[in-house]
Amino acid sequence: MKSDVDGGRMVANTVADWVALDLAEGAGGGARAWVIDAQGQVAAEGRLPRAGNGAAAPGGWEAGLRAWLEGCGVAGAPDVPVLAAGAHGLAAPRGIPCPPLPERLLPASGGQADGKRLFPVPGLLQASPPDLVHGAAARIAGWLAQAPAFDGVILCLQAGGSTWAHVSAGEVVSFQSFLSGEIFAALAPAGVDQGNLPEDPEFTEALAGAQARPERLAAHLAGARAALEAGQISPEAVRARLAAALIGAELAAARPYWLGRDLALIGAGPLAGAYEAALKAQGITPARMEEGTAVLAGLAVARGRLRPR
Amino acid sequence: MKSDVDGGRMVANTVADWVALDLAEGAGGGARAWVIDAQGQVAAEGRLPRAGNGAAAPGGWEAGLRAWLEGCGVAGAPDVPVLAAGAHGLAAPRGIPCPPLPERLLPASGGQADGKRLFPVPGLLQASPPDLVHGAAARIAGWLAQAPAFDGVILCLQAGGSTWAHVSAGEVVSFQSFLSGEIFAALAPAGVDQGNLPEDPEFTEALAGAQARPERLAAHLAGARAALEAGQISPEAVRARLAAALIGAELAAARPYWLGRDLALIGAGPLAGAYEAALKAQGITPARMEEGTAVLAGLAVARGRLRPR
Repeated sequence: MKSDVDGGRMVANTVADWVALDLAEGAGGGARAWVIDAQGQVAAEGRLPRAGNGAAAPGGWEAGLRAWLEGCGVAGAPDVPVLAAGAHGLAAPRGIPCPPLPERLLPASGGQADGKRLFPVPGLLQASPPDLVHGAAARIAGWLAQAPAFDGVILCLQAGGSTWAHVSAGEVVSFQSFLSGEIFAALAPAGVDQGNLPEDPEFTEALAGAQARPERLAAHLAGARAALEAGQISPEAVRARLAAALIGAELAAARPYWLGRDLALIGAGPLAGAYEAALKAQGITPARMEEGTAVLAGLAVARGRLRPR
Repeated sequence: MKSDVDGGRMVANTVADWVALDLAEGAGGGARAWVIDAQGQVAAEGRLPRAGNGAAAPGGWEAGLRAWLEGCGVAGAPDVPVLAAGAHGLAAPRGIPCPPLPERLLPASGGQADGKRLFPVPGLLQASPPDLVHGAAARIAGWLAQAPAFDGVILCLQAGGSTWAHVSAGEVVSFQSFLSGEIFAALAPAGVDQGNLPEDPEFTEALAGAQARPERLAAHLAGARAALEAGQISPEAVRARLAAALIGAELAAARPYWLGRDLALIGAGPLAGAYEAALKAQGITPARMEEGTAVLAGLAVARGRLRPR
């Protein structure tokens, strides 16, 4: 993980048309930002340092974004609109069933300095069972942009957790979130490379046990930590076992979502590979879309829906 | 929770015989300490500030203990033995099946300054499925001190998690730990009074849902948090729902432990009441022993087994 703003690689004299921001990014552990030029091309991209504990607090990432844009030398930076996926508390969530994006995107509510040019994608709210997602809306919109007639389930892996969304006729019909990612972050040993989970025998073995007894999740987690403390397994292995316990239990609980439906998986890195391997072990091969690609595609649709200022 | 050493109420001129220390204390969120006089009576008790993140790191609590003992004015404090429950890394764990306490208690390994007078109760190690507990050993010994012929299951609620231990003929035969407490601590909103969980209708309702679908633990946790963020429930209610989701799933997974066996519950505070209420909803009324009583009774047995110096 990078400790500071990085990744600016701006083409000189490019005029920015808009800025894309993903505050729910699951793979890298910080907000991801892109500068998009008038031709719709990515002129710069980078990662902003994570603000606070995963969830993006209003204001927590603004200074980082400003510094990064200045570092990129983006022409017209103070005025270009910033479209944000995964922002909490900056727009009222929309009740489902509804399309993933509203007809018009409004400037952020809440009165922060950059509010007049910040356009957050609203979260999606499910009344019963109660559920609320933020980053998933732009991801689902990005998937539908290239598959408008898709009828099935989209699994979005984001910072903190995952969301299984049932999409039909262009609308999000229902969804189910799991805090697996946040539990993993709280329990896994720090400073260990995640490695190539799907090919780790520890992962494969623990996955089978977790799927067979998903109700024993908190016990599987305790067992992995105990084995580490007793010196029986390495920190890398305990990470693999914790991931397997969480993913295995999640797949068992989400079975009504993936069984007999088309499934698309939006994520990145070893974690997405681990979910894919676990699904394949159940005989399911999901379609895949890279997380950044999905977010950018979704925000590009949203870019065409800004309310004129 | 107290922010500093507290609770010294030493009787003047009392000569301390030994000091009891519980580093796995579940109810108060810090190490608990007692001074025991030559008549076996509690001459002082208090709580030491929590060192680090729940688990007691060697050395993390030593300064606090020393300051507290000085504050109590314990005569002979530098020399009295300190018997510690729940210490990690200071004694090699013992493999089960075995009695909860060894025949002889040895001084701490590891070379800390107080090592020569510190006698940790060793943890218990289960090879398969892998499991390792620290604080439970002294608690089980405390229960058996007043019920030596007990054959059944002892549920110990400690900081970070709970342990279900099957005890027969004075030996720990098997056990199963759950990280429910640590998951709860990581996810629950801070600064909210735990309240009287067993009588909270949110708890009762969520408990039924959790027991019916225990494999959906990470989804139940996500739903409770989403309802909080959507403004549907209070921080107190989300705490109750998180506790219910974790306890409900744990009871479903631990069913082979509590079904058809005598059950003793060692814990304290609203959490112990919540486990008891959940068990009663399953038709089980556990025997109860207060956490401090059990630890003190177990350490008193250990006190009689110190290796002479």
